Amino acid sequence: MNDLIVIDGLQYCKWDREYFHFLHQSKITAVHITLVYHENTRETLARFGEWNTLFSQNEDLIMPIICVSDIDKAKELGKVGIFFGAQNCSPIEDDISLVEIMRKLGLFIMQLTYNNQSLLATGCYEDKDSGLTRFGKQVVDEMNRVGMIIDMSHSSEQSTLETIEYSSRAICISHANPSFAHKAKRNKSNAVLKSLAHTKGLLGLSLYPFHLPNTSHCTLDTFCQMAADTVEVMGIDCVGVGSDLCLRQPQSILEWMRNGRWSKKMDFGEGSSSNANWPENPSWFSDSEGMENIHNGLLKQGFSAEEREKILGKNWSNFLASSLQPHKSNLSKEATN
Amino acid sequence: MNDLIVIDGLQYCKWDREYFHFLHQSKITAVHITLVYHENTRETLARFGEWNTLFSQNEDLIMPIICVSDIDKAKELGKVGIFFGAQNCSPIEDDISLVEIMRKLGLFIMQLTYNNQSLLATGCYEDKDSGLTRFGKQVVDEMNRVGMIIDMSHSSEQSTLETIEYSSRAICISHANPSFAHKAKRNKSNAVLKSLAHTKGLLGLSLYPFHLPNTSHCTLDTFCQMAADTVEVMGIDCVGVGSDLCLRQPQSILEWMRNGRWSKKMDFGEGSSSNANWPENPSWFSDSEGMENIHNGLLKQGFSAEEREKILGKNWSNFLASSLQPHKSNLSKEATN
Repeated sequence: MNDLIVIDGLQYCKWDREYFHFLHQSKITAVHITLVYHENTRETLARFGEWNTLFSQNEDLIMPIICVSDIDKAKELGKVGIFFGAQNCSPIEDDISLVEIMRKLGLFIMQLTYNNQSLLATGCYEDKDSGLTRFGKQVVDEMNRVGMIIDMSHSSEQSTLETIEYSSRAICISHANPSFAHKAKRNKSNAVLKSLAHTKGLLGLSLYPFHLPNTSHCTLDTFCQMAADTVEVMGIDCVGVGSDLCLRQPQSILEWMRNGRWSKKMDFGEGSSSNANWPENPSWFSDSEGMENIHNGLLKQGFSAEEREKILGKNWSNFLASSLQPHKSNLSKEATN
Repeated sequence: MNDLIVIDGLQYCKWDREYFHFLHQSKITAVHITLVYHENTRETLARFGEWNTLFSQNEDLIMPIICVSDIDKAKELGKVGIFFGAQNCSPIEDDISLVEIMRKLGLFIMQLTYNNQSLLATGCYEDKDSGLTRFGKQVVDEMNRVGMIIDMSHSSEQSTLETIEYSSRAICISHANPSFAHKAKRNKSNAVLKSLAHTKGLLGLSLYPFHLPNTSHCTLDTFCQMAADTVEVMGIDCVGVGSDLCLRQPQSILEWMRNGRWSKKMDFGEGSSSNANWPENPSWFSDSEGMENIHNGLLKQGFSAEEREKILGKNWSNFLASSLQPHKSNLSKEATN
């Protein structure tokens, strides 16, 4: 796997030097890191500021991905490239002009909603799904214009289908699995997968136990079988990995993800009151061998070298390359330099 | 009308000394003023701050209504009482704990949504109406607990019906008319009016031309006939006035109301590109005689002295009296003192 560009399409770990060593050992070339869950505009700026400090203190290990060619540069330099996404639309609050501002600051990807109804669309945990809102349609137009990628990982069925159809550019589901492999509110129907593939979108297969068949006990073979079945539905160019790896995070972070500031009662998300903690990762995806294990599993599953290359990174880098350029000339050049 | 307590259930005028003189001449005892449309938490605090200055500079003309008995005090002192509401849930942003904070600062009333989908419920201008969201239900519980009044004036049908049913306390529609009188997205169906009345809620009849039969040309007789027809549906205890009077405001304010920060294209709300300006008020509701004209119109329509008293103010004061106390003892006393 050493020659491959390996991209993990979603992580949210405790970002520090120790973890950057871990990423390095994992042979990951670039990783989409979750900058924020529920943070508002001001708090998002603080997260960017904290990352600037991390970059300067760990420049021997990590580097920011500012344009897509930086992924190759990271590979050459033996560093791990970092690019940013938001799991919710909270960074733009109620202000459409903040889409361009956030893109200029380096927010490549933004989910339209995180589990709950947002100002833009419906999350997968709501009882009713009303699709894209009036504001939502304008934000999709604006994200299309400035080259910010739409992510519907935590969105509901109708909202996802409508967004795929409404958006003039391909979207991603950075971290989720097919419902046919495991029924979970967060996983995606064949209708969504087919529509996503039809529009040249991307699915990142998730390793988060609640999304896996047999959860924490999912075997590597089962995971790779799911990958094969997903490729059967979507084609080889539309499937990558988005591990949703959350390592070394305290319980308080899980509670923040689930509850934000919206709930006075404890919400347990995909867990329950009797199963409130972080789920245990599958044994083959719990240390720095994880991506290598997947590579070997895909080999055993019968995927060719070219196919493994696509699933482990090339599909993500191709998708980023076609998604991050602005659509119109009226965007100032700095936004995507 | 001089002996009556007159309450206008919604105004958004240019608040200055000249206007406070106008309110005084209008014989209005107390008025629900719109503090914010789309302002976020920080901006809402600024609006409270500006009102503190207005109170101190105009204490001969106006006074804050801090508890319901202040309405009688305003009448005795010959001042106009001011109480605050928000036309959107923007003051609490994404944070349920801000409901109690805003109530403590004097926010008596809050709409769950203003035309568009909010984090809580659906506005009347959305194509699809998904009702109360997960966060919305928690906010209703919290508003019920602290004694903040729910207002669904700009909400959609299903969201309004669900909220009336879900809320443990009566809600209001501070400014809207029945759809049977004039079909407009903002006006309310008989199903809503009946459900509102059944739960002892309150409707404030609107004078905003877009909500009136024959818009700006609505006659006083037609308005009073609408009042009679509404009382027929809802009973005499559930109908008041919420004029939605917007006097002396520039076009930029209308554009802020309609577009907030969510739209890059100009949205014309109830108007259109060829009718983009403030509508003209009916001639009988365009100066300080407006409330007196309505009083006389109701008399001509056959309403008794007691009925006129209820419609012009007593229904509002009764509703406020039963709505502003906290439900539970765990709310600190200052919140409703």
